[in-house]
Amino acid sequence: MTQRRGLLVILSSPSGAGKSTLAKRLMAWDCRLSFSVSATTRTPRTGELDGREYFFKSRDEFLKMVKDGEMLEHAEVFGNFYGSPKAPVEAAIADGRDVLFDIDWQGGQQITNSALKDAVVSVFILPPSITELERRLNTRGQDTDDVIAGRMTKSRDEISHWAEYDYVLVNDDLDECESRLKTILTAERLKRIRQPGLMDHVRTLNTEFEDHLK
Amino acid sequence: MTQRRGLLVILSSPSGAGKSTLAKRLMAWDCRLSFSVSATTRTPRTGELDGREYFFKSRDEFLKMVKDGEMLEHAEVFGNFYGSPKAPVEAAIADGRDVLFDIDWQGGQQITNSALKDAVVSVFILPPSITELERRLNTRGQDTDDVIAGRMTKSRDEISHWAEYDYVLVNDDLDECESRLKTILTAERLKRIRQPGLMDHVRTLNTEFEDHLK
Repeated sequence: MTQRRGLLVILSSPSGAGKSTLAKRLMAWDCRLSFSVSATTRTPRTGELDGREYFFKSRDEFLKMVKDGEMLEHAEVFGNFYGSPKAPVEAAIADGRDVLFDIDWQGGQQITNSALKDAVVSVFILPPSITELERRLNTRGQDTDDVIAGRMTKSRDEISHWAEYDYVLVNDDLDECESRLKTILTAERLKRIRQPGLMDHVRTLNTEFEDHLK
Repeated sequence: MTQRRGLLVILSSPSGAGKSTLAKRLMAWDCRLSFSVSATTRTPRTGELDGREYFFKSRDEFLKMVKDGEMLEHAEVFGNFYGSPKAPVEAAIADGRDVLFDIDWQGGQQITNSALKDAVVSVFILPPSITELERRLNTRGQDTDDVIAGRMTKSRDEISHWAEYDYVLVNDDLDECESRLKTILTAERLKRIRQPGLMDHVRTLNTEFEDHLK
């Protein structure tokens, strides 16, 4: 049986559109999904664990990984580097598991235009309104007004890239949005090119036809 | 609001793989789906109504429609012509409704390679085994052995075209197969290129950003 190669599922959205919650729900739904933990040079926040939220790296460590070709994508945002380490992703998809990326448009663009592009399914989450986006950023209660203002500017930049994605969902209802994400993933797995085992099945049917004619 | 253009959903499979049952279930599920009633030159069977199962045409009428460019696709099978009249399909998709085609690989190939190709979603249904396919053809009880033998030959020819379709389903469980078809259709409607209204939504978000900066 030909081994199925996993998908790279890219989830992007402006901060506050529900992307991280949706990513968590998808991970809880399907054990065939692996989450791509990003590497970053930013300082860990309270409660964040190395290897869970991020792989925390020094600037030198990070840039060495980039130089050695160990990053699938990387970008600098607000003075910090973020990137997706290549090794765990390649191990997962070779094993037939799909990998979920919670990354911004810069990362999405790099993976979608890399050698792995045939395995990419990209989804952009739009907020129902900017008022709602700002409300969600404010009620997090963990950021200063300046940080929120910065996020709003970045949000506008992020949203401007919506048209580079395969699927677009407007998150006006979190449960509905979750259900749509699952539908997209289930359908993508049913595409002919995602099912290498079909060739074997058709070969068996042809052998049966031959036996039938004898 | 930009009007959504409907999809052309092509369902093909060898005779006996469950395609017609699945088509009926899809039609019952979603009122936004229109069924493309084929035209044919074959004699009506008992219980078949003109305009419901088929549009029954004389050979001359049929060939005139082809000559006048009124057929989306057509082919000759076992001495009879079959084809999909263009007018009802164009009316439906212009109105934002999706159209379901229960047609063979010859029809599928013509639509998939026509000017409408961007609107096509094609699904091929494979039987779990040839033994099962033959069993289903026998238990229909409406055909002679010769007709069944002819269908088996045509089935092999039909199956050989499985790799021309976007999605492939193995129908080893009718309910599961139905559910997968619905999943595919739901996901296809969530593709960015299928949602012309998104551009308006993003325009509104940008206006909100502008107001926010004032």
